[in-house]
Amino acid sequence: MPPFTTRRRVEFRDTDAAGIAHFSAFFFWMESAEHELLRAVGVRVVDPTPEGIDASWPRVSASCDYTSAVRFGDEVDIAVTVAVGRSSATYTFAFSQAGRVVAAGRVVAVRCLMHPDRKPEPVPIPGEIVARLAAYGPQA
Amino acid sequence: MPPFTTRRRVEFRDTDAAGIAHFSAFFFWMESAEHELLRAVGVRVVDPTPEGIDASWPRVSASCDYTSAVRFGDEVDIAVTVAVGRSSATYTFAFSQAGRVVAAGRVVAVRCLMHPDRKPEPVPIPGEIVARLAAYGPQA
Amino acid sequence: MPPFTTRRRVEFRDTDAAGIAHFSAFFFWMESAEHELLRAVGVRVVDPTPEGIDASWPRVSASCDYTSAVRFGDEVDIAVTVAVGRSSATYTFAFSQAGRVVAAGRVVAVRCLMHPDRKPEPVPIPGEIVARLAAYGPQA
Amino acid sequence: MPPFTTRRRVEFRDTDAAGIAHFSAFFFWMESAEHELLRAVGVRVVDPTPEGIDASWPRVSASCDYTSAVRFGDEVDIAVTVAVGRSSATYTFAFSQAGRVVAAGRVVAVRCLMHPDRKPEPVPIPGEIVARLAAYGPQA
Repeated sequence: MPPFTTRRRVEFRDTDAAGIAHFSAFFFWMESAEHELLRAVGVRVVDPTPEGIDASWPRVSASCDYTSAVRFGDEVDIAVTVAVGRSSATYTFAFSQAGRVVAAGRVVAVRCLMHPDRKPEPVPIPGEIVARLAAYGPQA
Repeated sequence: MPPFTTRRRVEFRDTDAAGIAHFSAFFFWMESAEHELLRAVGVRVVDPTPEGIDASWPRVSASCDYTSAVRFGDEVDIAVTVAVGRSSATYTFAFSQAGRVVAAGRVVAVRCLMHPDRKPEPVPIPGEIVARLAAYGPQA
Repeated sequence: MPPFTTRRRVEFRDTDAAGIAHFSAFFFWMESAEHELLRAVGVRVVDPTPEGIDASWPRVSASCDYTSAVRFGDEVDIAVTVAVGRSSATYTFAFSQAGRVVAAGRVVAVRCLMHPDRKPEPVPIPGEIVARLAAYGPQA
Repeated sequence: MPPFTTRRRVEFRDTDAAGIAHFSAFFFWMESAEHELLRAVGVRVVDPTPEGIDASWPRVSASCDYTSAVRFGDEVDIAVTVAVGRSSATYTFAFSQAGRVVAAGRVVAVRCLMHPDRKPEPVPIPGEIVARLAAYGPQA
């Protein structure tokens, strides 16, 4: 089971006055890579439920460790795996550029009913979605 | 009637690899200055109506002309005026830094009912709001 | 001479609490489409000169008119043309989504030598670059 | 030794289509709060050295845990402490809104010489800066 992979070019909007991609850009790339993975396995990011309330995936934790800088125009390769718990999905992201490691990230998202005007309510991840996400489970 | 004024420090998030504030930052500053002006005169940015639908101010046009760069840590002074039409409010923004002109912007926002799931519906600006915005009308 | 075209998916980072793509996102998309066009015709965005100073394209003006909203996950089509003056390149951008017009933008960039620690110096656009940009000149 | 505190209003640029502040906004707020703390104790964010090379503080790690959402217009209180190692400064951020905890973040920055065209070089934090940062050291 290889990880899900995607590629992303560093845009000028992603850079800062130190001449490199701003550390925040990696968090945006994580979110977009997560959404690409969900689309690839046929899971809706915002998922209407029979009760008329959307289910979605608010994040409870996000982190990134930086090893090396990337610059405007670089192409960044992102390998993603996802480990599924009862309500949570833990994504790991390995960022590389031209074969060298540049960063490693991690996001924990929780399947929730997105009630208007009150807190998101965690719910178990439906079995069908668990099965779909298994395609990109953690490496053995 | 002097313009409404506010001040904004250039944050690192606002910079780019050319070492200056990215041109997009001025649009964010315009939006925030517009909201500050509305708060200063007691107009809600998102305004619940008796019919249970929010009124707000989607923009139909935004532009900026750039004269000089600003850099991380600079304090940017913003002078704002607003001209009111039937449904529209046209804001002009004069950006300066340490007394020198750096940019000039313009935004046209339209008072709209924000219906869920269909297009915003332009509505006349209520007289009370027209009166409040007059405090920062265009210079004579 | 058809315009240069590219496509862009609305990312979650591009959205705002009104549930649509934030007006600023169109400016980021314009910049990235401009850079894609330059890459497509073999012009470097940051171009080292024989004198050891980079030439680049700071913008002096940017504007956008908004017709209709786009939402998370939408694919936005962008058609770009560029008209070349002595030192300036004027880009126009037509944004559409599923065939409907959503916005129209315009950016004026000026070919400049990017001196460290003093203002960018406008220079004539080299003939070879003028010739390359002609591939995507304004429609007749 | 109370922590350094600052306050930040959620801007519209910070929100997303879920109607709340986007998770990335907390990272921008952390960076700006770090810079405010440095300014408050008289430490330059970008610090020219006698050798003619700037010293600065690239980050090697950033993380945030989210407890509760904040919305457009909310005022977010941020309490910051900093623990100093040989070359690294570890910042912790406690985010609250109207007295309720909303998030907790952590950033590790490393004092580096920012050589042009090669990797940042970690250097010991000068004693004078260690002494200044001690004003906002971790709580006993």
